[in-house]
Amino acid sequence: MAANFQDAMMLLGDSITEFSWTEGGLAQKLAAAYSRRCDVVNRGFSGYNTEWILPIFSKAFAKKPSQHWYPRVNLLTVWFGANDACIPSSHQYVPLEKFKQNLLSIISMVRQPTSEWYSPSTRVILITPPPVNEKLWLDRRLVRSREYADAVKQVAQEAGVGVVDAWTAIWESAGETEENLRDYLYDGLHLNAEGYRIVYDRLIETISMQHPELHYDSLPYVHPKWDELQLAVPENPGQL
Amino acid sequence: MAANFQDAMMLLGDSITEFSWTEGGLAQKLAAAYSRRCDVVNRGFSGYNTEWILPIFSKAFAKKPSQHWYPRVNLLTVWFGANDACIPSSHQYVPLEKFKQNLLSIISMVRQPTSEWYSPSTRVILITPPPVNEKLWLDRRLVRSREYADAVKQVAQEAGVGVVDAWTAIWESAGETEENLRDYLYDGLHLNAEGYRIVYDRLIETISMQHPELHYDSLPYVHPKWDELQLAVPENPGQL
Repeated sequence: MAANFQDAMMLLGDSITEFSWTEGGLAQKLAAAYSRRCDVVNRGFSGYNTEWILPIFSKAFAKKPSQHWYPRVNLLTVWFGANDACIPSSHQYVPLEKFKQNLLSIISMVRQPTSEWYSPSTRVILITPPPVNEKLWLDRRLVRSREYADAVKQVAQEAGVGVVDAWTAIWESAGETEENLRDYLYDGLHLNAEGYRIVYDRLIETISMQHPELHYDSLPYVHPKWDELQLAVPENPGQL
Repeated sequence: MAANFQDAMMLLGDSITEFSWTEGGLAQKLAAAYSRRCDVVNRGFSGYNTEWILPIFSKAFAKKPSQHWYPRVNLLTVWFGANDACIPSSHQYVPLEKFKQNLLSIISMVRQPTSEWYSPSTRVILITPPPVNEKLWLDRRLVRSREYADAVKQVAQEAGVGVVDAWTAIWESAGETEENLRDYLYDGLHLNAEGYRIVYDRLIETISMQHPELHYDSLPYVHPKWDELQLAVPENPGQL
């Protein structure tokens, strides 16, 4: 069994998070940057919206009585909206107000002292959904993706947590034209490596500004570098 | 805290494992392939040899009394030799017989019923160190890397566990010439994406043949795909 060995950061989200173990994806880049300092736990669920993720998150994040067994989650990123913002006839659609309420529920689960999942040492950063190229992904609308992105920013402000505005960062990189979004979204909805790079850079900036103690350069190695080892290795250290 | 949510595979090794969260690295490719099925836990420690890793592994792998709390490790890969095979005047050098004994110790910790770390559901696969370009990395020798690779194969046979012969696979891909190793080792010792691709492909082949139940296509999704969800979502699932 994998023991509680070092802290973790948890990435909660939809397909844009799930697919981010790919080369140049957000999870890959974070895992490379935080190697030996903190594990990266990907809890991205393709197709899920904020409604469906709640029961999943309630299992993925430990409850208080068992928290001492498990790796501390020093950072929780919450990245939804791509599916919630579906056209209302879709199964995946979550109305804007309900979307905000669900995001607040996730934050409250971690930050509300009366919550079973209360974890005061966990920092939360929300990420806005990216803009959509509606010519490529037919049951999404650019204007709606922006409404849901704005809602994420409102929730972050209201709850007093950090936010990465992926929508604006990608939109501006695309010269504010839907056509140029293809440079960042390979199918109109999902990010390519260039899209993830933008979000990764903004996330690291946000960490630097709001939670500098969690920047990869601030977190110490959990175990010594090999040339700093105290080399009084016991005869049979496996039996310690 | 990150709860026990799904099984994990643990990659134990030196820098070649530690650095494999990079784009095209072994950990990255496994995490992408096993997404939603199994987490990938990277326990690579740059510069470490089999002697120094033992006390680390004894903390990274849970002991029996607490194992039920932690993610089951369905697969443990053990990839050493790059440092152990250093020239004998180096600090990192581990004599060949001691190297074999240490590998056997790691395997025994997991497979020996009397061990505190006994985990009968964990499959073990050893990986041989890659060949070295000694013109680029001066305190290593090609011939020694082969001796340590052969030792890994002997230990695997003796212990009855699987083995991926990274040495031979990379050596043959390089046309059995030291000079061509640069296509797979960017500095004479560490693998580039092409080197990792070879090892990843062989590892997946070995899993397919020896532990087919652990192939990514055989492991089920831990949670349902979004379009298979039973949509009787309770009003406030966060409170479940």
